[in-house]
Amino acid sequence: MTKIFAYGIREDEKPALQEWATAHPEIEIDFTSELLTPETAALAQGADGAVVYQQLDYTRDTLAALANVGVKSISLRNVGTDNIDFDAAREFGFKISNVPVYSPNAIAEHSIIQMSRLLRRTKPLDAKIAKHDLRWAPTIGREVRMQTVGVIGTGHIGQVAINILKGFGAKVIAFDPYQNDKLAAEGLYVNSLDELYAQADVISLYVPGVPANHHMINDESIAKMKDGVVIVNCSRGNLVDIDAIIAGLDNGKISDFAMDVYENEVGLFNEDWSGKEFPDAKIADLIARPNVLVTPHTAFYTTKAVEEMVHQSFDAAVAFAGGQTPETAVEY
Amino acid sequence: MTKIFAYGIREDEKPALQEWATAHPEIEIDFTSELLTPETAALAQGADGAVVYQQLDYTRDTLAALANVGVKSISLRNVGTDNIDFDAAREFGFKISNVPVYSPNAIAEHSIIQMSRLLRRTKPLDAKIAKHDLRWAPTIGREVRMQTVGVIGTGHIGQVAINILKGFGAKVIAFDPYQNDKLAAEGLYVNSLDELYAQADVISLYVPGVPANHHMINDESIAKMKDGVVIVNCSRGNLVDIDAIIAGLDNGKISDFAMDVYENEVGLFNEDWSGKEFPDAKIADLIARPNVLVTPHTAFYTTKAVEEMVHQSFDAAVAFAGGQTPETAVEY
Repeated sequence: MTKIFAYGIREDEKPALQEWATAHPEIEIDFTSELLTPETAALAQGADGAVVYQQLDYTRDTLAALANVGVKSISLRNVGTDNIDFDAAREFGFKISNVPVYSPNAIAEHSIIQMSRLLRRTKPLDAKIAKHDLRWAPTIGREVRMQTVGVIGTGHIGQVAINILKGFGAKVIAFDPYQNDKLAAEGLYVNSLDELYAQADVISLYVPGVPANHHMINDESIAKMKDGVVIVNCSRGNLVDIDAIIAGLDNGKISDFAMDVYENEVGLFNEDWSGKEFPDAKIADLIARPNVLVTPHTAFYTTKAVEEMVHQSFDAAVAFAGGQTPETAVEY
Repeated sequence: MTKIFAYGIREDEKPALQEWATAHPEIEIDFTSELLTPETAALAQGADGAVVYQQLDYTRDTLAALANVGVKSISLRNVGTDNIDFDAAREFGFKISNVPVYSPNAIAEHSIIQMSRLLRRTKPLDAKIAKHDLRWAPTIGREVRMQTVGVIGTGHIGQVAINILKGFGAKVIAFDPYQNDKLAAEGLYVNSLDELYAQADVISLYVPGVPANHHMINDESIAKMKDGVVIVNCSRGNLVDIDAIIAGLDNGKISDFAMDVYENEVGLFNEDWSGKEFPDAKIADLIARPNVLVTPHTAFYTTKAVEEMVHQSFDAAVAFAGGQTPETAVEY
C-alpha cells in the first residue's frame, strides 16, 4: 500500500486532507504539524513520498535525513522552491513537485473586494459604526461601475479580476506587453503604461515581481496618474516603492491604497506582533490610516486555494510513488 | 429668470449642486442647509419652486407658509412621500415630484461587497491586523465563485446584483413571483422559496417591504436553509425577524449576516450615539459580533446616487416652473 507522509499540516488544511483521504482509501496517509527538519525526517520512515510546506529551508542535512529513511520525493503544497538546496536534491536523486496554480480567483477576488472597500470607505465607516456613530456623512462612497479601472498584467489573475470588474459594470482598461487575444479583440488594451496612468481612476497590479517591474510604482509613475487615484497591489511587494506611496497619500495625490504584499514582508507578515514592538514603522503607519487597507499576504488564503494546495500535492506524491511524472513536477 | 430654492442641502450634495448649476446658467439657484419649516418657508420667497429632502413632516402649516410666499411646487430629492400632508397640498394646489430611481447599482454593489466581506471574514481579519496580529490562521476566507447565491427579488437592484455575482463566477439561483424573461431564459429561477432556501449557501434580499413579505426571514424559513448559511439584507428592515436572525447566529445555523436596514431604524440610524447610551441592545450586540456587518442604511449613499437625487429633483423643479409635468411627478 502506497503511503504518503505530510509535514507542517495546519488546522485549516485538515478538512481538505480528510476530503482527499476519503477519496483515496487505497493510500495510507500520516501527518504531523511539525515542519521537516533533520530531526523530524525520521517520522516519514516507511512512506513513499513526503508532502511539505514551509518557509524553513530544505537543507542538505534535511534532505539527507529524509533520503536516509528511504523517502526520495518531496511534494510542496505551495509555489516557491527557492528554499530548496537543489544541488543536494540532485545528489540524492529527489523528485520534486510544487503547486504553481491553486486559485487565481482567491487573489483576484481579494483585490477587487479591497478595491471596492476603498471606494466605499468601509474602514472609516466601520470605525464610526463600532463607536455607535451611525451618521451617513461624511463617509460617502463611490460606485465601482463609475470607475475607469486600469488593470496592469492580464495573466490568469488579471483576467479573473477583469471579469469581476465587468460584472460591476466598470470601464476596464489594461496594459500587458504580452497581450491576450480575446481581451485585445475587446479593445481593452491601451498602448502604454503612461496612457493607463493618465486615464485610470483606479489602478490594480497583476504582474510578476521580475527585475523589470521592480518599483514600477514610484514617484515618477505616480506623478503621471490622475489626482486622487486609488492603487491596489495584491501582486508582489517589490512592484511598489512604498515611500512614493506614502508621499502620494500624504500630499493627496493618492486617495486610497490597498496592499496585500510588501517588499520587506518576510519575517513581518504571518507573525503575531500584538503586544510586542512592531518592527516596521511604515507599515504600522499605513495600517492605522483610514484610507489604507493592509492585509498580510492573505489574498491567496481561501478554503478553495488550500484545498487545491493539499489535493494537488498529494496527487503529485502518489504519481511519484507510482513511477509517474505529475504535471506539477519541478524540473531542476 | 427661473429661480429654484433648495432646503436642507448637505455638504456631500454641494458638488452635485455645483455641477447642475454650471450646466444650467439660465437658472438662478439659492439654497440653505436648514430644513423646510413654517419658519424657513420665507427663505424661498421669489423662487419658482422648492427642492427639498427631509424626514421632518411637510405639514399643513409648512405648505401654507410656502404657498404664502408664492411657491407652489416641491421637488423631493428622495423617494419617500409619506411625510407629506397631501390633503393640504391638494388644497393649496402643490405640484410634487420625487426621485424614485437614483442608483440601483449603489445598493446592489453594497450588498455584494458586504456579502464578499463576510465570506472573506474581513471584520475579524481587520481587527487582527489593527492590533498587529498578522497571522493568517484562523481567518481563512471563502471564494464568492464557489458559492450558490440565492437572490430573492429580481427587480432593478436584484438584476444588478446578479450581474456582479456572475462576474465573480458564482452560481446564481433566483426567486421572484414576477419573473424577468431574460433571467428565466437563462434558467436562473427556482420554483419556490423553499427550493432556494434548500440550495443556497448565501441568500440576499431585493424585495419590497410590502405586507406579504413581512418577516419572510423567520424561524421557519431559516430552518429550511443550509447549515452555515450567509444572509444579506440591504432591502427593507421588516423583511427580517431580527430575533430569528440572532437565534440563528447564536446556534450556528447562520454563519454570517449583513444588514443595511432594520425594522426599527427610524430615530436610530443616521444619528450619532457615540458617548451616549445606545437605545437598541439587539443592534449593539450585532454591531459587536465578528461575523455580522451592520451599516446604517448607507447602501444608497454614493456620489452617483446623490448626484442623481440632486440633478433629477432640480430638473423636475424647472419643469414644473415651465408648466410641464416631469416624469418624476407624483400623482396624488
